[in-house]
Amino acid sequence: MENLMSSAEDQQPTSPLANTWSYQQDCKNERPKSVGGFVLVHAGAGYHSESKAKEYKHVCKRACQRAVDRLKAGALAVEAVAAALVELEDSPFTNAGMGSNLNLSGEIECDASIMDGKSLHYGAVGAIRGIKNPVLVANRLLSEAQKGKLSAGRIPPCFLVGRGAHDWAVTHGIPPCPSEKMATKFSLSAYKRNKRKMELAEKMDTGHTQTKKCRQSSENGNGSGCLDTVGAVVVDQEGNVAAAVSSGGLAMKHPGRVGQAAHYGCGCWAENGCNMNPYSTAVSTSGCGEHLIRTMLARECSAAMQSEDAHQALLEAMQNKFISSPFLAGEDRVLGGVIVLRCCRCAEAEPSQDIQAILVEFLWSHTTESMCVGYMSVQDSKAKTHISRLPPGAVPGQSLAIEGGVCRLMNTVE
Amino acid sequence: MENLMSSAEDQQPTSPLANTWSYQQDCKNERPKSVGGFVLVHAGAGYHSESKAKEYKHVCKRACQRAVDRLKAGALAVEAVAAALVELEDSPFTNAGMGSNLNLSGEIECDASIMDGKSLHYGAVGAIRGIKNPVLVANRLLSEAQKGKLSAGRIPPCFLVGRGAHDWAVTHGIPPCPSEKMATKFSLSAYKRNKRKMELAEKMDTGHTQTKKCRQSSENGNGSGCLDTVGAVVVDQEGNVAAAVSSGGLAMKHPGRVGQAAHYGCGCWAENGCNMNPYSTAVSTSGCGEHLIRTMLARECSAAMQSEDAHQALLEAMQNKFISSPFLAGEDRVLGGVIVLRCCRCAEAEPSQDIQAILVEFLWSHTTESMCVGYMSVQDSKAKTHISRLPPGAVPGQSLAIEGGVCRLMNTVE
Repeated sequence: MENLMSSAEDQQPTSPLANTWSYQQDCKNERPKSVGGFVLVHAGAGYHSESKAKEYKHVCKRACQRAVDRLKAGALAVEAVAAALVELEDSPFTNAGMGSNLNLSGEIECDASIMDGKSLHYGAVGAIRGIKNPVLVANRLLSEAQKGKLSAGRIPPCFLVGRGAHDWAVTHGIPPCPSEKMATKFSLSAYKRNKRKMELAEKMDTGHTQTKKCRQSSENGNGSGCLDTVGAVVVDQEGNVAAAVSSGGLAMKHPGRVGQAAHYGCGCWAENGCNMNPYSTAVSTSGCGEHLIRTMLARECSAAMQSEDAHQALLEAMQNKFISSPFLAGEDRVLGGVIVLRCCRCAEAEPSQDIQAILVEFLWSHTTESMCVGYMSVQDSKAKTHISRLPPGAVPGQSLAIEGGVCRLMNTVE
Repeated sequence: MENLMSSAEDQQPTSPLANTWSYQQDCKNERPKSVGGFVLVHAGAGYHSESKAKEYKHVCKRACQRAVDRLKAGALAVEAVAAALVELEDSPFTNAGMGSNLNLSGEIECDASIMDGKSLHYGAVGAIRGIKNPVLVANRLLSEAQKGKLSAGRIPPCFLVGRGAHDWAVTHGIPPCPSEKMATKFSLSAYKRNKRKMELAEKMDTGHTQTKKCRQSSENGNGSGCLDTVGAVVVDQEGNVAAAVSSGGLAMKHPGRVGQAAHYGCGCWAENGCNMNPYSTAVSTSGCGEHLIRTMLARECSAAMQSEDAHQALLEAMQNKFISSPFLAGEDRVLGGVIVLRCCRCAEAEPSQDIQAILVEFLWSHTTESMCVGYMSVQDSKAKTHISRLPPGAVPGQSLAIEGGVCRLMNTVE
């Protein structure tokens, strides 16, 4: 496999709503090998304090490595993306799996989903308690559904919630985890702080100073009050794409609340190219669940990616289908972020009939203050990580940042 | 208000996948009045036995009347559609609310959602137990979300599931209902029959004769084993549209399974017209939840309705986005149905500046053996009902039926 990347950076104002973008490309030349693939992950769009930046980058790095290890072993995209998610969920610093936000009752309830661009199958769990890696339940639902009907012609479920989801997981060999082990000292102290804040706000009937308070508390704690959702997108050596997402949901959410991470078309989307669509696309979203649900952002971004210019298409999708969406007309701040992968077979002549080139474009964009991403191709010795931030003075929820790169994968055809 | 409808029926083969359609229009001339509006409801796409046809038609009739009563009282579309759903849920013959299918554990867990085309807000509940009218919880979620943020700047939920949804409902004044009161002798006997059937199938490892058995049992019982989901679509005197859907889900589903009735974009969709979209559209779906989820059928049909020819657009959507959808490539039978409403201001010159005419096109289409619908305008003295059936010899899941009508509403502008 040859991993061709070129490096460049640019900044150009586009509109009052999108006042910065940079596009980076990294170049390398390596010998073609028999396996290929690429992974892009994120550890949440929200506010990443400088003090914790190192931790976020570390977990993104490890998640990329986990996916690449699976790809090197010949795994399909959907397996690799699940492996990346497990690493992201296991980190106590992310708002997914271990260390998730606590809800109003002081419990952890998680959402997760996964989509396979090859089979177009999808699995999701919502408001699931006592499972360390919700993405594994979603992935198992996906793989069970692919096996076809259950006894007596019953159609297998693609979405399970609550107690039923937990019990199904355990029946299918996924071990339960006591809820108290999933909470961390950070998530517990954030819960206590949020509870006091809520009580105070309810007494004073003032929610207006909330944003500032929230940022302050992020600097003190693990920022989970403002962060949401982790995710990954993967392309494998055959050019199949997959996407996944996992979230502990909003802090102090009502028990039973399900966010975009479990919503079809909202949390993640993956679709291999076909006659109608030249590009394979994979998207994972993060941010305020209700905003991401009502705009169906993952699917919208995926559809937009069939335009010629990926960067321009994502910019327009984030502006027109998210920030200025008629579905969020009443919202003053529209908070979210996406990671996007799109791939196609390279059109140019290859050095050999036995080698297939796949052009991978990878992008991220967010309206939140920051978004932590990591990416890696199978040929890289380690992942690159980056905390993307809105430019100084930009208003979160009204402006966006957009960045990305290009990677050419060269796969030996067996 | 003038209610202009004309009557006609036609049959024309279109393709091997859509081997029948008829388009009916009913004509009446009445004096313009100050209120207007139209409702279209269905009591499930599935198999409606002749022996129970009368009951299904009756409940559709009552549901239409409930919506029209609300419209006459000046209610908006979203209130009227919720009123229709309550009537459909209260019937022990439909698979929603009272008399819902029982799950694997012998419990009733319901899904419901509602969408307001004016505000584009949406509310949904999934796998909720012990609530007689799940649509009222979905509607309350919608109206609470429209009020804006909760204390301490928290974003109100649009989707609640399981125990949390139940508790939220009770806190918000919706009375609980003991689960045993929601089961009927029909649903209990269907459960026992299905359980025996499952045990037999698991022993014999043969699910192939299931379709036949299911039809047989429908004739004996209430048909709930094959039916799914009820719904309604409404346009009010101002031209606002709304849609809602409610379901007890598939019989013998796994506890915690959530079907299309609680899935954004899958169970219902409503979108008032705007600069981009000349038509206001409302859609409600019924059938196999997993098929309706993976094809996002409600939103797809709504988007298709922006084409000039509503009938042709729905036909193509049902063929290309459902029966032949790449998302259901592995499925041998794709089972579902939709009801659709689309409206626009009439272009022709009106008799008076004070009178606005709204052209309402209403359609239904299904790949299931049958679908029971009812419709009524505010000017009608009673609802019309109809059980639409596939033509003899057509294969359910591979063929479709499509029918509909046109109604012109004349509203006095205040």
